[in-house]
Amino acid sequence: MEGPGNPGRFVTTEAGPSDDKAGNSCVDFPVAVVLPAGGTGERTGLQTPKQFCTFLNRPLISYTIQAFERVPWIETIVVVISEESTDLMTDIIYRFQHRKVRVVQGGSTRHRSICNGVQALNQGPVRKPKVVIIHDGVRPFVEEELLYKITMAAKEQGAAGAIRPLVSTVIATTSEGFLDHSLDRAKYRASEMPQGFLYDVIYQAYQRCSESDFEFGTECLHLALQYCGTNAKLIEGPPTLWKVTYKRDLAAAESIIKETLSRSVCIIAGGSAQATALADALQQAMASLDMELDIIPDLMGDNARCLSRDWNFVQVSVSSPRPCEVEAIIRALEAAERTVLHPAVLVWVHLNVSDGPFISQRREETAAIAELASVAKSRNVLLYGVRLHRSQEAASWERSVGRLTEIISALIRDRSTALVGQLLQA
Amino acid sequence: MEGPGNPGRFVTTEAGPSDDKAGNSCVDFPVAVVLPAGGTGERTGLQTPKQFCTFLNRPLISYTIQAFERVPWIETIVVVISEESTDLMTDIIYRFQHRKVRVVQGGSTRHRSICNGVQALNQGPVRKPKVVIIHDGVRPFVEEELLYKITMAAKEQGAAGAIRPLVSTVIATTSEGFLDHSLDRAKYRASEMPQGFLYDVIYQAYQRCSESDFEFGTECLHLALQYCGTNAKLIEGPPTLWKVTYKRDLAAAESIIKETLSRSVCIIAGGSAQATALADALQQAMASLDMELDIIPDLMGDNARCLSRDWNFVQVSVSSPRPCEVEAIIRALEAAERTVLHPAVLVWVHLNVSDGPFISQRREETAAIAELASVAKSRNVLLYGVRLHRSQEAASWERSVGRLTEIISALIRDRSTALVGQLLQA
Repeated sequence: MEGPGNPGRFVTTEAGPSDDKAGNSCVDFPVAVVLPAGGTGERTGLQTPKQFCTFLNRPLISYTIQAFERVPWIETIVVVISEESTDLMTDIIYRFQHRKVRVVQGGSTRHRSICNGVQALNQGPVRKPKVVIIHDGVRPFVEEELLYKITMAAKEQGAAGAIRPLVSTVIATTSEGFLDHSLDRAKYRASEMPQGFLYDVIYQAYQRCSESDFEFGTECLHLALQYCGTNAKLIEGPPTLWKVTYKRDLAAAESIIKETLSRSVCIIAGGSAQATALADALQQAMASLDMELDIIPDLMGDNARCLSRDWNFVQVSVSSPRPCEVEAIIRALEAAERTVLHPAVLVWVHLNVSDGPFISQRREETAAIAELASVAKSRNVLLYGVRLHRSQEAASWERSVGRLTEIISALIRDRSTALVGQLLQA
Repeated sequence: MEGPGNPGRFVTTEAGPSDDKAGNSCVDFPVAVVLPAGGTGERTGLQTPKQFCTFLNRPLISYTIQAFERVPWIETIVVVISEESTDLMTDIIYRFQHRKVRVVQGGSTRHRSICNGVQALNQGPVRKPKVVIIHDGVRPFVEEELLYKITMAAKEQGAAGAIRPLVSTVIATTSEGFLDHSLDRAKYRASEMPQGFLYDVIYQAYQRCSESDFEFGTECLHLALQYCGTNAKLIEGPPTLWKVTYKRDLAAAESIIKETLSRSVCIIAGGSAQATALADALQQAMASLDMELDIIPDLMGDNARCLSRDWNFVQVSVSSPRPCEVEAIIRALEAAERTVLHPAVLVWVHLNVSDGPFISQRREETAAIAELASVAKSRNVLLYGVRLHRSQEAASWERSVGRLTEIISALIRDRSTALVGQLLQA
């Protein structure tokens, strides 16, 4: 399912890769998603609502949309947003090439917004779904495996919801602010998202529920129970289901996103024996870093497969680094639409194999890389340079390779935009 | 209260600075803390228990200890750990110069561990406290203001505990895994830490409670209620009270720690007019970054005040940067014990004011900074270099200052050890 023009999988680390069996399982009925994204995010203490906070220059809501878009059996994603955000959302859909999204205007409360989304699925051009999944714009790390389980359980039972164990003990308080009693943690669970419903169940529940439900209610499963008599099946989900709520959650989300994008590196060594030797040394040094590593001579033919996944790139150039080598990679990444969703990291390693230091080149290299980096950045490629001297002394060479390993993995992991275009020294 | 030898305040951003009135309020009775830190951290999915995971080379438990150590009216901190961790804990106390800590061996469950800690306060050299605060080794961001409220409420009511609103709806499940009912969020709260007790209340509660409480119980407030009839006063705390539980929480904690250390920068401009002009330009450019900024000629006399807080440093050197300028700062930081708890960031800016590029110097500079950086690192100072050319052309100069601002703030915020000793170009 991977390839140019198809948003890559976004597997999260806490949950581990999802079970591919789920993806292959047949869902032979229409499924749609309602994604409320109209919150104001006041609990983060930031001006921007959480769903529009950006990670690597991309809003959180786009990550969440992508999590559903990559699931082949999900047909439509209704994003429910406030009127003020319509233009912003249209722009996001365009920039990140989302293809399954329909935007619907929200209401004054969460339930009114979800209800608008559900009703929109019964109108206009979209096919009325059999099952509708309700999720949250600020829970970006949902996996296909769980979506499949929720969908199938919803089809069979009428409703299904993800749960998690409670992290804290839950207590009942008196009206004076004292402890009344504490709940037995074993009997209770935190109700999370996604939840799934037979379309008719959730539609009816919203038809029948009261103004007070619309105003103060929070739990869709509760409406299905109260107004349709449907007891939801509860399914335990992974910890990554958590909802981005506080400012610290933004840092946690960013860290998961960055870690996910830092799992693999492709070293382009050209035809030179010296470059290949360095690539081999890097491969050894990086073995302990839990990073998948591939060495290829170039991006031609079969090697172009490296463009279709979230690889990071290291170009090793010997003696006289030529910008055209790097330009070719940037062009290839662009042609493969590899940087639509995430920036790619490209580290340009200059391996000096001459005996003496080559001072005069340094200025040219510095200028060349700064210039190239600004072109690359406009194409969502983060370019950094590292110089390395091929010492004939084994211990010194080993230290250099060690430093280079450390620098490359830090550049890939941190994705700092401030350091783009720098020529570092290993 | 700040000064050499006294661990600095550690104010968290989500909560904002604590109210100093709390710190000045008189607590005229003995208060001790029990800090269970024996968990295995299995929910993070990491090998190292969470409390020993390091942030900027310092274990989480040390941050938590510091949060209590900086409170003048807290006398003793009993850290309860498993037998395997005794040596590690002893080493942490030594390295980070903790002065109020006593280590006690834990039991097989959380309640047994806390009970051991409480009993230890009634034996040996420590004065039996009036109030004991029970906290968690993995909640590092607790503020003095809340500790004060909890302590006073515990003294008056016998018990007090911090609470937070529920983030997710809590639901009761049937034994078959279906929804039974959902709780009204308004009536319930998450019970968090710290909790405070009159010593005699928590001591008695543990004397009277059952084996089953020791084995399966989680809530100290519940024991005080059940066995001493003490209804705890509940006090809402800030979101930073949360417990580091999952892997993502480690990233969130790191981000809070780094943000807290990146609030202020001190520019050392020496006597040169050109360096001072650059410092002024930086001050303007950094105004929007929410960073406190001070410009001083050196660290002599009154200016040494900058050593006593968590400032970061920028040394501006003109034309021929001399290592002795940077060495002096590193020595001063060491003498002030400024880097015992956190690394300090030191950015060495080389301002070239000559007309032509000075190629020959560059190699020397690169070598000098790499060498200095390794000395600095051994003293917990992260040293980076940035070169800058004083262009006579206004627009070009402005761009350089903009890049320098971006680079300095990224270096301070990221604190990358892999990039230490690099000479960057602004």
